Amino acid sequence: MQLTILGCHSATPRANAHPTAQILDINGELMLIDCGEGTQVQLRKQKVKFSRLSHIFISHLHGDHYFGLIGLLSTFSLLSRTAELHIHAPKGLEEIIKLQLKASHAYTSYPLIFHTLASSKPEMILDNEKLTVETIPLDHRIYTNGFLFKAKAGDRKLLIDKVLDLNIDKAYYKSIVKGKDVETKDGELINNKDITEDPKPAPSYAFCSDTAFKPTIVPQITGVSLLYHESTFLEEQEHLCNKTKHSTAKQAGIIAQKAQVHKLILGHFSARYKDLSLFEKEAKVVFDHAENAETGKIFRYD
Amino acid sequence: MQLTILGCHSATPRANAHPTAQILDINGELMLIDCGEGTQVQLRKQKVKFSRLSHIFISHLHGDHYFGLIGLLSTFSLLSRTAELHIHAPKGLEEIIKLQLKASHAYTSYPLIFHTLASSKPEMILDNEKLTVETIPLDHRIYTNGFLFKAKAGDRKLLIDKVLDLNIDKAYYKSIVKGKDVETKDGELINNKDITEDPKPAPSYAFCSDTAFKPTIVPQITGVSLLYHESTFLEEQEHLCNKTKHSTAKQAGIIAQKAQVHKLILGHFSARYKDLSLFEKEAKVVFDHAENAETGKIFRYD
Repeated sequence: MQLTILGCHSATPRANAHPTAQILDINGELMLIDCGEGTQVQLRKQKVKFSRLSHIFISHLHGDHYFGLIGLLSTFSLLSRTAELHIHAPKGLEEIIKLQLKASHAYTSYPLIFHTLASSKPEMILDNEKLTVETIPLDHRIYTNGFLFKAKAGDRKLLIDKVLDLNIDKAYYKSIVKGKDVETKDGELINNKDITEDPKPAPSYAFCSDTAFKPTIVPQITGVSLLYHESTFLEEQEHLCNKTKHSTAKQAGIIAQKAQVHKLILGHFSARYKDLSLFEKEAKVVFDHAENAETGKIFRYD
Repeated sequence: MQLTILGCHSATPRANAHPTAQILDINGELMLIDCGEGTQVQLRKQKVKFSRLSHIFISHLHGDHYFGLIGLLSTFSLLSRTAELHIHAPKGLEEIIKLQLKASHAYTSYPLIFHTLASSKPEMILDNEKLTVETIPLDHRIYTNGFLFKAKAGDRKLLIDKVLDLNIDKAYYKSIVKGKDVETKDGELINNKDITEDPKPAPSYAFCSDTAFKPTIVPQITGVSLLYHESTFLEEQEHLCNKTKHSTAKQAGIIAQKAQVHKLILGHFSARYKDLSLFEKEAKVVFDHAENAETGKIFRYD
């Protein structure tokens, strides 16, 4: 699993401060999470092969999380994309995109499929052979979801010495790693668990932006490999969180610590701060495995 | 008059190829013409004091000419703008912008006034004490206007030696430069033309993008100080102009030559060309005062 940060700053885009957008490469599927203005240029700069994108997830309809989407969708048409593209987003986005396509008399060259999110409870919104995606309802000024991506575990691992000892026909190997029991050449029934071991734990990623401090999400995200949690402010400006419905770096650290995640990634930094290292420092007081997002930074988890 | 190129490439934005946007500083008024994705970042990079913007002109509703507008309008709110902002644009844009503002529950902090363009004939759309702006109907795949900006001439120039010789009271100077006749202290009536000369010719700017070759615009733009005319293709690809309704550099040169403009600026280059100097070269064959637009380039005319 590989997460590429395309932008991790809040509000207005500036020359070196791009709004929220991330690319998640998970079990061979390429997903875009949020799409602030300029995302398509960031995709090019980071050399992402974005024709591989199959699903786009939009957390909420504040501009710094979706104003780059219409441009990206238009570019796919200019590049003569034909593969289906799925957009998972709150109510309203489909109308916004379709109105703009209509105004330009330019429909997409590919099937564009909208999946409207409206529930205030976690929902399974994607379940294919490679992964599942669930919404994580968040607490922001407008309807907002985070997203929980879970890779599906691979095949079971063959205990090759045992299989050879039992003289099991090679033709069965494919079904054995899928978990099936098998018969030896002598007709003895072998329990799958005796000749395989569990696959490596599958990686998972929780994206939580934008949100006020919301500890009720902890059970859903417990144990994830990577957690991105917004930290728009430092604790010194915690009073701004109530009105704006954002979090501090410390609050992000508390969520990570409670959820016992492997790593916390901080982002959505307010433009008021010059020294972003303070975010990492503040979160580390409560959760040591905290790291700042940066444009172009790649987080890997195997 | 000063024209700053923020972007001059067609279609998809790339790292060093920004879509159409220009800033015109004319008689102290700051105008934005078109607003492709990323324009607000370009405004910052070029250090334009964009709080001074009073009017935005959108030629047509292809994305590379307006996808950056909603972001810029949102940023003005974040910056707590209070001054009126006027948008002159084809039908459809007001609905697109208002739908997006509604989705974010974030209305503008300033009066946002739309002026819908729908006529197929030239219209005077702005006439204040500093300048006039007329539409230049163009020939593109969707409804499109160019814009003709004409600064108003300044005050007449006082012939100070003559005024002193005639012993005219200083109190009259202000009305003399406005063109009024005056009496000397001895009661003699002096014709204004005998004590003033014409002001410097006022600069004018014609923006023509996107359009197929359309010589019928020539009378309207004859003699302008600066003409920006799109040249998406070189003559070698002229066959593409019919379907796409664009022009070649040579065709832009012909328009400039027929209209006897002072300078032609070329832009809206297709991404297919690596060597953009060929555009300037091609136009110069028919019109010598041709120059390529470039991101960040400033064209001045006094």
